[in-house]
Amino acid sequence: MTAKNILFIMFDQLRWDYLSCYGAQHIETPNIDRLAQKGVRFTRAYVQAPLCGPSRMCTYTGRYVHSHGASWNGTPMKVGEQTMGDHLRRAGMGCWLVGKTHMAADAEGMARLGLDPDSIIGARVAECGFDVFERDDGMRAVGPDGPLTEPGGHGYDAYLQARGYDTENPWHDHANASVDAQGNVLSGWFMKHAGEAANIEEADSETPYLTRRGIDFINSRDDAPWLCHLSYIKPHWPYIVPAPYHDIYGPHDAPPPNRAQSEFDNAHPVLKALMRNSVGKAFARDDVRSAVIPAYMGLIKQCDDQMGVLFEWLEQTGRMEDTMIVVTSDHGDFLGDHWMGEKTFFHDAAVKVPLIIYDPSAAADGTRGTVCDELVQAIDLAPTFVEVAGGDVADHVLEGQSLLPLLYGETAWDRDRVICEYDYASTPLADALGLSVREAVMFMVADKRWKLIHCEGGLRPILFDLKNDPDELVDLAEVPDHHDVIAQMYDKLHAWTRRIAQRTTRTEAQLVALRTTLRRRGVVLGIYDENDTDLELTVAYRDRKAQVRKQPS
Amino acid sequence: MTAKNILFIMFDQLRWDYLSCYGAQHIETPNIDRLAQKGVRFTRAYVQAPLCGPSRMCTYTGRYVHSHGASWNGTPMKVGEQTMGDHLRRAGMGCWLVGKTHMAADAEGMARLGLDPDSIIGARVAECGFDVFERDDGMRAVGPDGPLTEPGGHGYDAYLQARGYDTENPWHDHANASVDAQGNVLSGWFMKHAGEAANIEEADSETPYLTRRGIDFINSRDDAPWLCHLSYIKPHWPYIVPAPYHDIYGPHDAPPPNRAQSEFDNAHPVLKALMRNSVGKAFARDDVRSAVIPAYMGLIKQCDDQMGVLFEWLEQTGRMEDTMIVVTSDHGDFLGDHWMGEKTFFHDAAVKVPLIIYDPSAAADGTRGTVCDELVQAIDLAPTFVEVAGGDVADHVLEGQSLLPLLYGETAWDRDRVICEYDYASTPLADALGLSVREAVMFMVADKRWKLIHCEGGLRPILFDLKNDPDELVDLAEVPDHHDVIAQMYDKLHAWTRRIAQRTTRTEAQLVALRTTLRRRGVVLGIYDENDTDLELTVAYRDRKAQVRKQPS
Repeated sequence: MTAKNILFIMFDQLRWDYLSCYGAQHIETPNIDRLAQKGVRFTRAYVQAPLCGPSRMCTYTGRYVHSHGASWNGTPMKVGEQTMGDHLRRAGMGCWLVGKTHMAADAEGMARLGLDPDSIIGARVAECGFDVFERDDGMRAVGPDGPLTEPGGHGYDAYLQARGYDTENPWHDHANASVDAQGNVLSGWFMKHAGEAANIEEADSETPYLTRRGIDFINSRDDAPWLCHLSYIKPHWPYIVPAPYHDIYGPHDAPPPNRAQSEFDNAHPVLKALMRNSVGKAFARDDVRSAVIPAYMGLIKQCDDQMGVLFEWLEQTGRMEDTMIVVTSDHGDFLGDHWMGEKTFFHDAAVKVPLIIYDPSAAADGTRGTVCDELVQAIDLAPTFVEVAGGDVADHVLEGQSLLPLLYGETAWDRDRVICEYDYASTPLADALGLSVREAVMFMVADKRWKLIHCEGGLRPILFDLKNDPDELVDLAEVPDHHDVIAQMYDKLHAWTRRIAQRTTRTEAQLVALRTTLRRRGVVLGIYDENDTDLELTVAYRDRKAQVRKQPS
Repeated sequence: MTAKNILFIMFDQLRWDYLSCYGAQHIETPNIDRLAQKGVRFTRAYVQAPLCGPSRMCTYTGRYVHSHGASWNGTPMKVGEQTMGDHLRRAGMGCWLVGKTHMAADAEGMARLGLDPDSIIGARVAECGFDVFERDDGMRAVGPDGPLTEPGGHGYDAYLQARGYDTENPWHDHANASVDAQGNVLSGWFMKHAGEAANIEEADSETPYLTRRGIDFINSRDDAPWLCHLSYIKPHWPYIVPAPYHDIYGPHDAPPPNRAQSEFDNAHPVLKALMRNSVGKAFARDDVRSAVIPAYMGLIKQCDDQMGVLFEWLEQTGRMEDTMIVVTSDHGDFLGDHWMGEKTFFHDAAVKVPLIIYDPSAAADGTRGTVCDELVQAIDLAPTFVEVAGGDVADHVLEGQSLLPLLYGETAWDRDRVICEYDYASTPLADALGLSVREAVMFMVADKRWKLIHCEGGLRPILFDLKNDPDELVDLAEVPDHHDVIAQMYDKLHAWTRRIAQRTTRTEAQLVALRTTLRRRGVVLGIYDENDTDLELTVAYRDRKAQVRKQPS
């Protein structure tokens, strides 16, 4: 008996090593830890892109960026790509959204196919396969060229306004800013304010709001099985958190940066450019880290407390007994490690994520509280969910593998590499390096021992030894004697780039069946004389009569 | 002034070296030669798959098999893929079909998106972007499991029946069979009958029929620009042709097979399996070649004569002055070369095709009657046609390059490799080799000097030296001293497999523009103090007032 429902919780920009169950000494996350005690905690879970939008599009389609093409924030997911929702609904499970997806609809493609965005099908296509209970991408940015027009609902804005936060941008002015005694807004965009309390009642801030909306969703369900993607927008920046979380941690609680001077001095051109951009320069500063990291930790603490609220409610309502619960993140945050901020590169701080799966079924009893060190990917979640829903995994479409065998304690797991991709064609980094939109692309391939990063544009690769240098401080690509390792990792990368990823209209079973079909439908090649072959095959072409019409010359 | 219309003529299974303009000594094709004298003849034109369906899907989408996934005959083209028709209609040119496409609609995908196949959009999606004047895939095969259900119209069947060919399968019994004096049908499926005359009046056979339908189409047009894909189904098997073409050529006219005993003795496992299957074994026989090749040549001669009819009509009607004319094929035919029949491998007999382009515009005057030895691909046609139609080539979707610079005599052409792919997952060959559907895939990469074939499934590669062994008789992959060449060709292959092919929802110009957009929409990262940056960028976050609501703990 597998779980009936799935609660698929995603945080945004949550580092794996900021959870105490993952060994963090500087923060306690007892509620998430408690889930880990009831489920399996994965120590080598990798996202497929180090950035919100593409990482999520991989998770939601179960396919690599190289396969679906939505490779940057706001790049529309092309119409026709199948999603977790398509697969789950076929298996009889609803697929609902509460929170963030970062999905951009392919309006041009939808128009080309005549898909009405207001139809049920059109709305699902526009929302990456989800039925929307509430969408909230958590961003109300405004610049000199106007607001960032990102999709997403405005339920949270309306909520804040109804609660009396009466500016035209309460998301910014209250949820993501502090205030001084004179009523001046201290914007969370400016990191010097990170230590201040956000000017909002804690219960009105984004994380508790989304918890309540998740509970509202579950409460609204009848008996039909559902997946709820409860998708928090924190601890993503702006780095600011309401009281009491703003002063739980101080600068002394921030772990020291994981960086070495030699990394900076010998940096690969891409890394050098990331270290030298405004984010990299900021996170090299002690004052920035001292302001930001305590706020980031406060945001995580708030997230963990909300997990406590949620899990307690699930226990009280019985949902803990019939619901698989997944906790993960879309990527991490460098926070000054490796002289970088943000996440758009491939060190573990950015691309290795927490992944905890609690499965209430008896089959998972043997693995409760255990740790799984296998290589797993975010794209493994979609096939896992399809299996939970009782469907057949469409492995001609989905590129991950169900994790159920790992949850059930089965030992065979033949994954020998993980892949992550970063397309920076639409970023200033491409300009800094003078690269065209086809050159500004990188691929990471990693196994348990090595991590290779290939950069297009004629740039050299980067290599880390994850065993002897788990902090990833030494780029070995230019150190002698690694030629064979580099070649071996390139072999893994290229076995992947050559993979058949677009043959999505024929199942493997159909393809195998076709091996014997064609001849039995009369396509009989290589036959000189009808007696050369099995007579049955050619029965339709033998012993026929026709009027003589030919005109010999 | 470019051409107004495009007549895109494709033959099926026509070898380049069976045209006299390509140097054939054993056959005269004066009408096609005449077009070559008026246009440019390409000597290194490669299709992207050695099989009808996938080769055509590449041509019609302007994308590789690895990109669109319709990798075998009958594998549906997934909904959402853009086609030549989408691109041309955006540029104001209609895109019409007269003849064969081998398109299979993605009925499941269309249903998933709610696309009605009877709507205009649905019909175009189902027909690979064409508006159908007449579809005729030229196949009425029937076996013990029933008829091969291939899409396509039945206009030709109806025509034959109206003309009094009164069997239930006149395509087989008349157009593709002979008859003896007793009225017994001598099926064209059995190659011993290839030398007989088809039991049909020549004017009623498939090639003249399609010529007339093409003329009917052009006659039906008003003043709006059109592309007409006049897509013949010959000289594809069944190898049988009506009088007088059945006895123009005899066994003595067939060129000797291009093969060596050493090829057979030392064959790569894939080649060995192809040589040993029923088709390979048949075409190793002299009696088979002696029967088939004269009929194949007769079919080509008929095609060439029909080109004479068509070109004369175009001249008389003035269409020769405003219409680009392209003559090509979807692949070749081994005909016993290399101990194989059919086409499903990568020797030039199968994957190099004739390509002649006549452009009436003055810009092309300088290249009339010339030969172009550059590496070109079938997927270059779609962008060529878009340029002729006056559109912007969507190079984030289309993977070829417009050939207009070559037609206009411009010298720069930076293509340094061509690609061809064969997915045999659904064929008996995969069973013969014991391969899974993911392993039964091969890639060819060739430049002007070398041709490398990579086989998945752990099989070794194959290498030909096209300069010193233009007949491709010696596989050098296991000959010492070719390690560097193999590595260099693998580098070319992998540069291609890594290419970004699915980022089809953002143009290159959009991506470049985005490099500076995000910050100006208020996503201002890495700012500690508002005075650290250009004040304009953060104007929306400064000097704001809010009610004090925070609750310090």
